[in-house]
Amino acid sequence: MKSFTPTDKTRVRRLPDRGRYDAETVYAILDSAFICHVGYVIDGQPFVTPTAYWREGDDVYWHGSHASRALERAANARVCLTVTQLDGLVIARAAFHHSMNYRSVMIFGTPAKVEDEAHKARAMERFVERMYPGQWPTLRPITRNELKATTVLHMKIEEASAKIRTGPPKDDADDYALPIWAGVVPLEGLNRAPVADPRLARDVAIPDYLANLSHLGFKSS
Amino acid sequence: MKSFTPTDKTRVRRLPDRGRYDAETVYAILDSAFICHVGYVIDGQPFVTPTAYWREGDDVYWHGSHASRALERAANARVCLTVTQLDGLVIARAAFHHSMNYRSVMIFGTPAKVEDEAHKARAMERFVERMYPGQWPTLRPITRNELKATTVLHMKIEEASAKIRTGPPKDDADDYALPIWAGVVPLEGLNRAPVADPRLARDVAIPDYLANLSHLGFKSS
Repeated sequence: MKSFTPTDKTRVRRLPDRGRYDAETVYAILDSAFICHVGYVIDGQPFVTPTAYWREGDDVYWHGSHASRALERAANARVCLTVTQLDGLVIARAAFHHSMNYRSVMIFGTPAKVEDEAHKARAMERFVERMYPGQWPTLRPITRNELKATTVLHMKIEEASAKIRTGPPKDDADDYALPIWAGVVPLEGLNRAPVADPRLARDVAIPDYLANLSHLGFKSS
Repeated sequence: MKSFTPTDKTRVRRLPDRGRYDAETVYAILDSAFICHVGYVIDGQPFVTPTAYWREGDDVYWHGSHASRALERAANARVCLTVTQLDGLVIARAAFHHSMNYRSVMIFGTPAKVEDEAHKARAMERFVERMYPGQWPTLRPITRNELKATTVLHMKIEEASAKIRTGPPKDDADDYALPIWAGVVPLEGLNRAPVADPRLARDVAIPDYLANLSHLGFKSS
């Protein structure tokens, strides 16, 4: 089974039982979410910016305005891209053992701009289709000026570490007998019914691709 | 009204209509969430780590194991702490205008360890009470060894920028007449019914402080 070089091999110690480096686990977490936090450095100051992303094989993509200095400075520099999915509040009998259930992945790499216009157009199509399967052909087509005004970065995963915590709290042996409630509060992301733009043209129905957003990590209410 | 020095004054350009620097807005976003992403730099490599945090005035706190090199390296170094709350998927008539509704805040500062044991104990109590109001006195009391095994960082907000997007998509004038659905899919965090630890002592009821977690940004299912 394919595994990545851990991000923490020599640098950040982690709890040994939570680290996972196999590609299957890393991909599964990356594909369960669409918002990441990208870290980059400008003049010694770290910046952490939330952004939408998508994965294609071992490449992770994100994009933004051509005017974004964040994208400009991240290009060709070392970055860290972190995805976090929170699954539950873990409540123990002692504050020291309180925890969270979560799935997270941290990726290191050096992003580059997608310079080729056709590659950029394909990337945008894949991003839209990842978010809203079937939507791309229904939209007003993207223009060359819009592509020029968009910066797309892609980054090969060079190092990756996943961390997963599941299950009940782990209390001290002596504390289990105490009459204190302990357990897990499951957390979920939920999407509500779509709200049409007040300027919507008449007789436009809610499209089918909004019926199920479970691929983005949401359950419908 | 009090305002913070923007994080992006000279470094990262942002869309002018989304930036907010007043303390009221910054505090409101910080107090609506409990998970942040902390960025720090080790040997030129940025790291982005998710962690729970809490705010007291202009100080932001977070904590972890005494063995955490992440906390060790963040102490007395420049860090960026970012909080992101996702409120909706914004679907336009053209992919270029797709967006998200969100509230985010980015803070710069230089964290320091809480060295004083009494201060550390107070910090842990405030953290627990921020998460689960009324819970602290009901838990098995924290021990001196547990405090020693915990590192608490606190960081004064030196620079801060909030970004907020709300409302429907903003399409090109000519596109509004197109028969393409556009609007917003509202997103929410939800907490399900608590699941008791299988090793729970008998006759321990679910505590009242779990009945409402809206202060953490969740609605009950």
